[in-house]
Amino acid sequence: MGRLRRRSDTLEFLANAKDVVVLEPQIHKGKWRKVFGNDNPIHVELGMGKGKFISEMSLKYPEINFIGIDLYDELVRKASEKSYALREEHGVSDIDNLRLLLMNIEKIEEVFDENEIDQIYLNFSDPWPKKRHASRRLTHSNFLKKYRQVLKVEGEIHLKTDSVSLFEFSLNSFADMDLKMKNISLDLHREETPENHVFTEYEEKFVEQGVRIHRCEVIL
Amino acid sequence: MGRLRRRSDTLEFLANAKDVVVLEPQIHKGKWRKVFGNDNPIHVELGMGKGKFISEMSLKYPEINFIGIDLYDELVRKASEKSYALREEHGVSDIDNLRLLLMNIEKIEEVFDENEIDQIYLNFSDPWPKKRHASRRLTHSNFLKKYRQVLKVEGEIHLKTDSVSLFEFSLNSFADMDLKMKNISLDLHREETPENHVFTEYEEKFVEQGVRIHRCEVIL
Repeated sequence: MGRLRRRSDTLEFLANAKDVVVLEPQIHKGKWRKVFGNDNPIHVELGMGKGKFISEMSLKYPEINFIGIDLYDELVRKASEKSYALREEHGVSDIDNLRLLLMNIEKIEEVFDENEIDQIYLNFSDPWPKKRHASRRLTHSNFLKKYRQVLKVEGEIHLKTDSVSLFEFSLNSFADMDLKMKNISLDLHREETPENHVFTEYEEKFVEQGVRIHRCEVIL
Repeated sequence: MGRLRRRSDTLEFLANAKDVVVLEPQIHKGKWRKVFGNDNPIHVELGMGKGKFISEMSLKYPEINFIGIDLYDELVRKASEKSYALREEHGVSDIDNLRLLLMNIEKIEEVFDENEIDQIYLNFSDPWPKKRHASRRLTHSNFLKKYRQVLKVEGEIHLKTDSVSLFEFSLNSFADMDLKMKNISLDLHREETPENHVFTEYEEKFVEQGVRIHRCEVIL
């Protein structure tokens, strides 16, 4: 986020990008399947940043509906621009299975109904390294309880991070809540990267630099 | 183990070290509390190496009975010598709460009865990095099932290792068996080392070199 310049016309841009950006997501609570016009599963990325992951996922898996969420309007703009560019590149005209929301993750229960989400992605979330900020980490039990409200039964969280401290915190948070974990990796790219793997922006840089990526799936 | 020279009189030494070394542990199956002469909890280290950890623990916690196990006679000798030296240093004449066993961990069920052990330590176990050797890792499900036989209900395993791959394997092995984990650490000495912490030989070297230590407790 640090070096991201805010453009003066960003709100106007977002208001005009109605095919992908949703500025008032609360009004769709309980009706997201209607927004997408089908009953496909809904996967949500909390903190999508510049949107590489969610855009590429939405192209790769047309039978899944993707929702990217971020707190910063400039990032939602970047992500929608990324999605437009990617679709042009692939000759796809419509944005059917992707929506980008400008909202605070704290308010996730105001935007999604019980059992409305099938899966959550947490990619390179802010580690909030200071102890007094622990409750801001997106795997804090307070957040997990919110996610549980909106995730279907046996819905999953897929977590990727370079941060040793955030990953450690997350594992303990999952274990303390007796959540079932699987496919835990302390060095995701140690062996060959799986063929269908979708990288985030951070992940590409980190792998180049030899920084280890941690990953875990957890059933909520 | 690599640079450990085997002395020609080691078996003789072990036979004479009856106060601490048990050469025929099977005969005490179900009767280890009798061996120690009390009903104190029994903690077992699987793969004690040169015995620094188990010797120091036995001095520090006289109200717990400790059993160190290793496959190599020369290491059992080293560990008993360590224990003798440590006791001389502290002016303690008797070895009441420590026994060292020369045996293969595979045979743990032949040496301990159901529920006879209160806690197991796995310190810097061989990571067996090759996939075809996975079943030799001491946190493989086959071993965990053996431990469950001899550990009391809700007994714990305390695992410490520098090996990223062994720790990753262990976390998945615990999660796959739905075991409750706690106090997971991916960098045990990142902050201040706890006051009562007992280091193993490897751990001291690794911490000096800045190698991260992973730790986890699991309820079996």
